[in-house]
Amino acid sequence: MADPRRIRVIGIGSGHPEQLTGEAWTALSSVDYVVAARKSADDPLLQVRRRLCAKLDVPLVAVPDPERDRDDPADYAGAVRDWHAARVAAYADVLAERPGDVGFLVWGDPAFYDSTLRIVERLAATTGATYDVVPGISSPQLLAAAHRIVLHRVGQPVLFTTGRRLAGEVAAGHDNVLVMLDGALTCRDLDADAWEIWWGANLGTPGQRLVHGPLGEVLPRIEAERAAAASADGWVMDTYLLRRGASGAQVP
Amino acid sequence: MADPRRIRVIGIGSGHPEQLTGEAWTALSSVDYVVAARKSADDPLLQVRRRLCAKLDVPLVAVPDPERDRDDPADYAGAVRDWHAARVAAYADVLAERPGDVGFLVWGDPAFYDSTLRIVERLAATTGATYDVVPGISSPQLLAAAHRIVLHRVGQPVLFTTGRRLAGEVAAGHDNVLVMLDGALTCRDLDADAWEIWWGANLGTPGQRLVHGPLGEVLPRIEAERAAAASADGWVMDTYLLRRGASGAQVP
Repeated sequence: MADPRRIRVIGIGSGHPEQLTGEAWTALSSVDYVVAARKSADDPLLQVRRRLCAKLDVPLVAVPDPERDRDDPADYAGAVRDWHAARVAAYADVLAERPGDVGFLVWGDPAFYDSTLRIVERLAATTGATYDVVPGISSPQLLAAAHRIVLHRVGQPVLFTTGRRLAGEVAAGHDNVLVMLDGALTCRDLDADAWEIWWGANLGTPGQRLVHGPLGEVLPRIEAERAAAASADGWVMDTYLLRRGASGAQVP
Repeated sequence: MADPRRIRVIGIGSGHPEQLTGEAWTALSSVDYVVAARKSADDPLLQVRRRLCAKLDVPLVAVPDPERDRDDPADYAGAVRDWHAARVAAYADVLAERPGDVGFLVWGDPAFYDSTLRIVERLAATTGATYDVVPGISSPQLLAAAHRIVLHRVGQPVLFTTGRRLAGEVAAGHDNVLVMLDGALTCRDLDADAWEIWWGANLGTPGQRLVHGPLGEVLPRIEAERAAAASADGWVMDTYLLRRGASGAQVP
């Protein structure tokens, strides 16, 4: 009997070829094809995946991404669940048609705010495949490297969270917060005088933009850079670290 | 006038050559030599750095690590500060003797619980050098990949913290905590029935060990694996994710 089909979930960092680990290249070269979501006709993130696959002559199968219901914000978990189920079904159709090992290329690292692993877990159960994960450089790490910072004060914690939850985390007393998945710069609603921000967009790409300073002072610049990135690159993904207090108040 | 000397802080993940990014290899090949701390006569982590440097014929200068004062736990910040100052002085001596660009190879990623960046910042100020940072795969990412998990529930936060702070974070209500720098398995003091744990030691190396399950059930196995890793490899570094509640209680 043939070995079971293998699904490999591969972190690709910013998608720049130099940012993949050797292990990620080895994993990508081992699959028969890559499956990727196409979110729009000219999805720029799909193009990045295409270029990586082309380097190793690995075919890429683009699957139109199911619509996600954003009408009912009260049922966020339910909307995400339905969307995952629709994706699983669409990918299972592809796997039914095409034999061989399959790769999924994940922006950043599959361990942070990415649904691929949850989808692949169900896809593997549906299809009898095995799966494994290869980590990649995540956007918080690119942010830290570009700003040349450690993400926390000495011996102190850092909370990774989403824009949606930021106000609540701050109210709960967090003073060192890494924010992902924030399409709306939620930090503009915080007390502008209380926070220092390290912000980055399209990190690890030629269009990378960085801003650092007191939140109230640099927020207009961040808004302008964010709009400029979206306009120049056709997409924008940003991440930021917020730390309460000025640098002078930092534990050394 | 010559360009200023450049210091490059390079994340090497687990130290396995396959785990470096292309960018990290390019950075390593660009320096004239690497400076590394020697913590003992047969420091196994120094050997890993030596092997990476040997692949590119980059010389490695080993610097005996200054003693860190662990006598006064009340003045943790002060002890760390003195230790950093002693390291800066030792490295500045090396740079004064040897011209050229310098690399520092950082286990995991310089962005998390590592002092190299804070030391290099001061070293650069002392010597007039410039510096940059190349990220690497961190141990929480290796943990997540090996267990094939996302580090948080859908849309929920994850707190990165230290063993030293764990009890306080749990008392403050955190229910999804990634613990680093814990040489003493502090999680054994938690309510064993309330938590699920994903644990890993010597992640990304041939001696990697993994345990997952309800904390109370798997703790004896973790203790045994931890001792076995130290004995087999000559060193042990472990990281774990704690999540309150059983899998059944998870948001899907």
